[in-house]
Amino acid sequence: MRMKKFINDPKRLVPELLEGFALAFPARIRLLGTNTVVRATPKAAGKVRLVTLGGSGHEPGLSGFVGPGMLDYSVAGEIFAAPGAPRCIEALREACRDGGSALLIVLNHAGDVLAANITMEAAAREGLNVKMVLTGEDISGPVGDRRGLVGCVAVYKVAGAAAEQGASLDSCFHVAERMNRNMRTLAVAVRTATHPATGHPIFELGDDEMEIGMGQHGEAGTGRMKLKTADETAEIMLEKLLADLGVQQGDELLVLLNGAGATTLMELYLIFRRVARLLESKKIKLARSAIGEFITTQEQAGFQMTIARMDPELIRLWDEPADAPFFFQA
Amino acid sequence: MRMKKFINDPKRLVPELLEGFALAFPARIRLLGTNTVVRATPKAAGKVRLVTLGGSGHEPGLSGFVGPGMLDYSVAGEIFAAPGAPRCIEALREACRDGGSALLIVLNHAGDVLAANITMEAAAREGLNVKMVLTGEDISGPVGDRRGLVGCVAVYKVAGAAAEQGASLDSCFHVAERMNRNMRTLAVAVRTATHPATGHPIFELGDDEMEIGMGQHGEAGTGRMKLKTADETAEIMLEKLLADLGVQQGDELLVLLNGAGATTLMELYLIFRRVARLLESKKIKLARSAIGEFITTQEQAGFQMTIARMDPELIRLWDEPADAPFFFQA
Repeated sequence: MRMKKFINDPKRLVPELLEGFALAFPARIRLLGTNTVVRATPKAAGKVRLVTLGGSGHEPGLSGFVGPGMLDYSVAGEIFAAPGAPRCIEALREACRDGGSALLIVLNHAGDVLAANITMEAAAREGLNVKMVLTGEDISGPVGDRRGLVGCVAVYKVAGAAAEQGASLDSCFHVAERMNRNMRTLAVAVRTATHPATGHPIFELGDDEMEIGMGQHGEAGTGRMKLKTADETAEIMLEKLLADLGVQQGDELLVLLNGAGATTLMELYLIFRRVARLLESKKIKLARSAIGEFITTQEQAGFQMTIARMDPELIRLWDEPADAPFFFQA
Repeated sequence: MRMKKFINDPKRLVPELLEGFALAFPARIRLLGTNTVVRATPKAAGKVRLVTLGGSGHEPGLSGFVGPGMLDYSVAGEIFAAPGAPRCIEALREACRDGGSALLIVLNHAGDVLAANITMEAAAREGLNVKMVLTGEDISGPVGDRRGLVGCVAVYKVAGAAAEQGASLDSCFHVAERMNRNMRTLAVAVRTATHPATGHPIFELGDDEMEIGMGQHGEAGTGRMKLKTADETAEIMLEKLLADLGVQQGDELLVLLNGAGATTLMELYLIFRRVARLLESKKIKLARSAIGEFITTQEQAGFQMTIARMDPELIRLWDEPADAPFFFQA
């Protein structure tokens, strides 16, 4: 089947989509150089700037979270591909330009980590005051090398709130690390997407199958099985997440449900309903939640479920206002 | 191909999805009776309440726009079906309970209009102080009987802001009517969706075709053609809208782009880019915009484009704060 997407020249896809994004949100964001998104109104001098990097094709992520209370810089790569290190270094220089400091938040994917490591080495040589947090919370991967999925949004949120309040680079780093340690994500896919630059499907899946643990770019998961109901799927995924994080009665959780692209909000509501009821029955507190499309994989059908153990400081930071184009709290 | 949706019993779809919605946004909305969504914190007595009604399966619409500055009551029907008049009357009674008044906003679709007319007759018999606005801005239909598409969100927004500020029922009605008169929408579809209750596709379209003018439930449009690029599609649709509304140099427009479900935000950014550039070249001012998924048709691919001629009062009302779960401004 022919790719049915509204695009122009695939080679110009990323600059064009970012140009459209900037035209749509002129009061909030603007473009810097090639394909880097920055806040329209820069953060006050002396406060820690948050920088992220990652491939495009996941809109609204990652650049949709640039704004007061969240990110200061998002260095966008080509579709599903990390940006080159030179552009990341440029962003860090800019973030540190007035003797300031920056927290670089990177999702654990091989290409992104490679670019980030080169960038951090260059930053050290230049004497820039930068720390890096690598997010990785996908429980379908091995401990120590788990992929970074939608949980990065929670890290942006709490570290961004701390930075906005004038916390030091060390404090922002520790808040981000704690959020990262406290969270777990599991994805499920039921229908593939078409790569907008190549026109090819990014994975294959049977007509009656779903796959648990699939990554954000069609990376293989851990469990292929017959399609389940909303309640069954919610239960399978939540149980795995609770076990992996070792959640106890009385713990307070943040729950994120992230639609992959074509899965409807209707379905996410059904999944959320079952998650909320299961937590209630287990005497685990649903402290906060967010539900919608945060990091997509084109028109893939499926979703990511994230749980995170919250403490009073993380809840306070989560509740602080943020004004990024595509972040909204419940 | 089998329907690949996360659902449970199709007969329980609507109460379950609304239960999930209420569990996800407990600070903002709650359920009233069967399948009616209301604000968690009621509007102060004496202010006009806004009520809407319509089928489910379009999430986040319509109930996602309940909240301060927008709707007070959303009476949800079954999937793609109007709610029964008795439940609508109940909502109006509730909205008018303390001697208050209500504005009923209805999208022009046969079933919704039938329910609304019965409701308004009953309201008149009971002496309730209610006025009704029928939105209809789809230029693929005949003047006088145009379908109500995503433009209703702009009507909710400006009338909701007026009501929040204490405007009279007459004033709210006239603001809503003016917004409705000033707006035009055109839709395009490229890929069908599956009805979540029946499991059947809601329309058929060739592998290389797109259809302009398709309604929100797969109703036939006016122009089936080969799939075009983002730029070409944007231009075709914008030119039709500008001509129909009679837009002149110097006019100030609101532009809404509403994804149908599976069309990516990436694609909407490309469409928006071309729209913004075309308006600039025609010396028409892009006053405000919103881009995202507001009223969907399951996992259909395509989008709706709305333009509206704004005046200083409409812009002021559009800019007022609103706190509905799924409304966000640019």
